[in-house]
Amino acid sequence: MANEKKMVEQITSMDDDFAQWYTDIVKKADLIDYSSVKGCMIIRPYGYAIWENIQKLLDKRFKETGVENVYMPMFIPESLLNKEKDHVKGFAPEVAWVTYGGSEKLSERLCVRPTSETLFCEHYANIIRSYRDLPKIYNQWCSVVRWEKTTRPFLRSREFLWQEGHTMHATAEEAENEALLMLNVYADFFEKELGIPVIKGKKTDKEKFAGAKATYTVEALMHDGKALQGGTSHNFGDGFARAFGIQYLDKDNSLKYCSQTSWGVSTRIIGAIIMTHGDDRGLVLPPAIAPYQIVVVPCAQHKPGVIEKATEVYDRISKISRAKIDISDNSPGWKYAEYEMKGVPLRLEIGPRDIEANQCVLVRRDNGEKLTVSLDELEKIIPEMLADITKQLFSKALENRKNRTYTETDLDSFIKTAKEKSGYIRAYWCGDTECELRLKELADVTSRCMPFDEQGGEGRCICCGKKADKLVYWGKAY
Amino acid sequence: MANEKKMVEQITSMDDDFAQWYTDIVKKADLIDYSSVKGCMIIRPYGYAIWENIQKLLDKRFKETGVENVYMPMFIPESLLNKEKDHVKGFAPEVAWVTYGGSEKLSERLCVRPTSETLFCEHYANIIRSYRDLPKIYNQWCSVVRWEKTTRPFLRSREFLWQEGHTMHATAEEAENEALLMLNVYADFFEKELGIPVIKGKKTDKEKFAGAKATYTVEALMHDGKALQGGTSHNFGDGFARAFGIQYLDKDNSLKYCSQTSWGVSTRIIGAIIMTHGDDRGLVLPPAIAPYQIVVVPCAQHKPGVIEKATEVYDRISKISRAKIDISDNSPGWKYAEYEMKGVPLRLEIGPRDIEANQCVLVRRDNGEKLTVSLDELEKIIPEMLADITKQLFSKALENRKNRTYTETDLDSFIKTAKEKSGYIRAYWCGDTECELRLKELADVTSRCMPFDEQGGEGRCICCGKKADKLVYWGKAY
Repeated sequence: MANEKKMVEQITSMDDDFAQWYTDIVKKADLIDYSSVKGCMIIRPYGYAIWENIQKLLDKRFKETGVENVYMPMFIPESLLNKEKDHVKGFAPEVAWVTYGGSEKLSERLCVRPTSETLFCEHYANIIRSYRDLPKIYNQWCSVVRWEKTTRPFLRSREFLWQEGHTMHATAEEAENEALLMLNVYADFFEKELGIPVIKGKKTDKEKFAGAKATYTVEALMHDGKALQGGTSHNFGDGFARAFGIQYLDKDNSLKYCSQTSWGVSTRIIGAIIMTHGDDRGLVLPPAIAPYQIVVVPCAQHKPGVIEKATEVYDRISKISRAKIDISDNSPGWKYAEYEMKGVPLRLEIGPRDIEANQCVLVRRDNGEKLTVSLDELEKIIPEMLADITKQLFSKALENRKNRTYTETDLDSFIKTAKEKSGYIRAYWCGDTECELRLKELADVTSRCMPFDEQGGEGRCICCGKKADKLVYWGKAY
Repeated sequence: MANEKKMVEQITSMDDDFAQWYTDIVKKADLIDYSSVKGCMIIRPYGYAIWENIQKLLDKRFKETGVENVYMPMFIPESLLNKEKDHVKGFAPEVAWVTYGGSEKLSERLCVRPTSETLFCEHYANIIRSYRDLPKIYNQWCSVVRWEKTTRPFLRSREFLWQEGHTMHATAEEAENEALLMLNVYADFFEKELGIPVIKGKKTDKEKFAGAKATYTVEALMHDGKALQGGTSHNFGDGFARAFGIQYLDKDNSLKYCSQTSWGVSTRIIGAIIMTHGDDRGLVLPPAIAPYQIVVVPCAQHKPGVIEKATEVYDRISKISRAKIDISDNSPGWKYAEYEMKGVPLRLEIGPRDIEANQCVLVRRDNGEKLTVSLDELEKIIPEMLADITKQLFSKALENRKNRTYTETDLDSFIKTAKEKSGYIRAYWCGDTECELRLKELADVTSRCMPFDEQGGEGRCICCGKKADKLVYWGKAY
C-alpha cells in the first residue's frame, strides 16, 4: 500500500538465534542506531524515552533516601587514578586516554572516567572535616567509557549511560547499611516497576569490584537462561579513605577514616528488559517505563466521526496514562504490528461499530488478550490492566527462572548441566578462588552471586569436595 | 558558638572587585568546588539542583514544541569532524583528543565532542529518506569539552553541561522558523522564569557559529555592564546537509537537501543568574530555579512548641512550594546569613510570640522587605510573593540595562564611552567585517547582536562613516 512507508519487517525468532533476535529488536523497535564511532551507540528517541523514565523513577527513589545529585569532571588525571592500587589495576587496561588539548600535548594524560571513585574521593577529602559533615550521599547521572573489545548495544558498549552513587559515612556499619539499602532500592525497582525478578546476593572476591571490600548485586535471568547483573552496590570499607586521606574529627575529638560505598545501574537495564520480556513479535515493555503505555488505533477511520471519537477517548486516557494516538494513513494491521514491535503495553482499538455500542477493544501486548470494554469504564480498567501486566510479566519471568535453575552436588553432573542446559546452577563452594577458576575452565561458568536468602546451610564444595558453607549460583552471563 | 560549624564568611563587595565577588559566591554558596582536573569544575549539590530545575523547565518547554531527546556518542572520529570545512576550522583548535584505548594506540584519533553537529548529521543521513521522515527535532542533554586556556566556573570551563538541539526540515523556511521558535523559547524562559531581560537579535558574520548561515542570540547584561550570551540558535541552511549527503525524496519525486538548525544553552545560565541578581550578601535566586524557594527558621526554638509549630507550617507550605526547614542548633543569625548567601527567595521566621499571635514573618531575599502575615494566609501569600520576586528581579535588571545602554554616532565618543563606561553601546554599522575588527582594536568591544526590534532605520557606520542600516549593540562580553 503506497501509504505505508515500510512494512513491519520480520525479526529472527528468539528460539532460532537469540543473539540475532536481540539485535533485530534494538534496531527495528528504533531503540538505537550505529554510528562511525566504533563500539558506541546512538540512543534514538524511543530508546532514550525508556531511559528517561528509568531515570525519573530511580531518581525519585534515591532522593527519598536522602541522595543529592552532583556532577564531577569527566576526566581523571593519571596520577589520581593511580592512587588506589586495586582500583587502577582493574580499570587502567580499559580506559580511553586524552593526550592532546587542541594542538598541545598534555603534560599528564587524562582518562575519560570509567567510574568516578577517585574524583569523589578527592572531593570528599576536600569537604569533609567533622562528624557533622557526615554522611555525604551523592550521586551523579552521566556517561562513562570502557574500552571494550567486543560490544553489543546496551549490554556492553564503549560508552554507556549510568548513575553512580558515592557515599561517605562515619562508621563501617553505616556504610554497610547504605550499601544494602541501595541494593534493596534496585531490587524493588526491578521487581515492582520492571517486572524482572532478581536475586540479591554477594559477589565472590574474584567477581567483586576493583577496590571494594564487598560487592552486592541484583542478578536477573534472561529468557535464554543467561544471567545479567542488573545493578551492583559496593562497600569499600575505608580502603579509598586511607589512600585519599579522608578523615573526620569525631565527637570524641579523634581523627577517624570514613567508610564508603558506591552503587550503580546503567543502560544495561534496557538490555535486561528486552531479554526478559521480549517475544517473537518484538519488544514487550513494562508499563512503568514504556514511552507510551497505550496506543489508540482507530479502525475504519475514514468513516465520519471515528477520528473525532478516537481523539476524544485519547484525550480522556491521556489524563491517566502516557498515551498516543495514531491517525496516520497506515492500515490498522500495519499499526498493530508496529506497536507490537515497539512493545506498547496496551492497544485500544475503536471503530464505527464500537462507537455505536459505546465500547472499545483493549488488547494486551504481553499475552495478546482482547477485552471489549465500555467507554465509561476506561479510567477504572486501564490502570488495573497496566498493573496486572507488570504482575504477569513478573510471574512469567519468575517461572522461566524456576524452570532454569538446577541444583547440583557432584562435579560431573555440574559440568553436564552446564554444557546441556542454560540457566543457574545452585551448588556449594568452599570459598577458594582456585575452585572458582577451575569451574570456569571445566564448565565455562562464573559465580553469579551468593544469594542472601540461601546462606546458612552446609554442603560439599562442588569442585574440591571439601566442607563448604557458601551456596553459589553459577552461570553464563551477559 | 561551639555549635556553629563555621561563621558565614564575608564576601568581597561587588563594587570593589566584581570578579572576586563572583568567585567568592560560587564557592561560598556551595555551588562548585575545584578538582585536580584543571579547568573543569565539580558542580556541588546546591549548584546541581539549580541545573536540574533549569533542565526540568526547559525540557518541558522543548517537548511542548515537539522536541524528542536522544543520546549521541561523546566521541567524534577526526575524519567525521573534518567533513564540514568551516566547522572543523572553528572547533579543531580547542578539542581534546583521545589517542589511546587502554594500551593500544587508536588508528584514528577521536575528539571529545565540543558540539555534535557532525554526529547528528551522520545519523540523519542514515535515517532520513522521504518527506515523511521530516521534520526531525532532536535534542540531547550532555556534557561537552572545549580546551579553553583561561577558565571561570560556569562562564568558561573545559567541560560544561548543556543541551544541544539539532533539527532537520524539508524547507529553508521551516528551518528559519524553527531557529526563531527556539530562540523565543529561550527568551521567554530567561525573562519569565529567571527574571533576566534579554535582547533577541542576530549575530554578525564574524561572531556567528562555525558553519552556520545565521546565528541568533539572546543577550543579557550583567550587573557590572558586561554582556553575556545566554543562548544561541543557528540556521545552517543546507551546508551540512550537502557535506553529509542528507537528502529526502519529496512529494514531487525529486531528491532535495534538508535544511537544518541547532540551538543550545549551557550551565553558563547559572553564571548569568549570579551576575544579574546577586548582591553583597551573596546569591539571589529566582524562585523558579531555586533548590528551595522558602526556608523556615524557628526563633527561640528551645522553647516548648516552637519546633513543632514550625514543622507544621513547613509541612503546609511544602505542598505549595519547594521548602526547607532548619532546626539545627546554629543560631538564627547564622541561619539568616547562610540562606541569604545561598539566595533562598523567602525566609519564614517563626518564634513563640508569633505562634501566640498566629502569625509569622516573611522576609524577601531580593529587597529585604519584611512582612508579618497570618498563618491562615500562607497558601495565598507565598505564591504571590514568589511571583512578585521574579517580576521585581526582572525590573531591577531591566533598569540596570537601561542605565548602561549608550547610543553613539561618532567614533571618538564611541571610543570614549567604551573606555569610561561599562554596558552596551548602540551604534550603526555598515556590515563590513573590517570595521568590526577595527572597533575591537580601537575600543576593545565586540558586536553582541543586531536586535530584531531595532532594525529598519538608517545611519552612518560608527567606524567608516558610510551609510549603514544595521543597528548593532557593542560591548565587552563574558
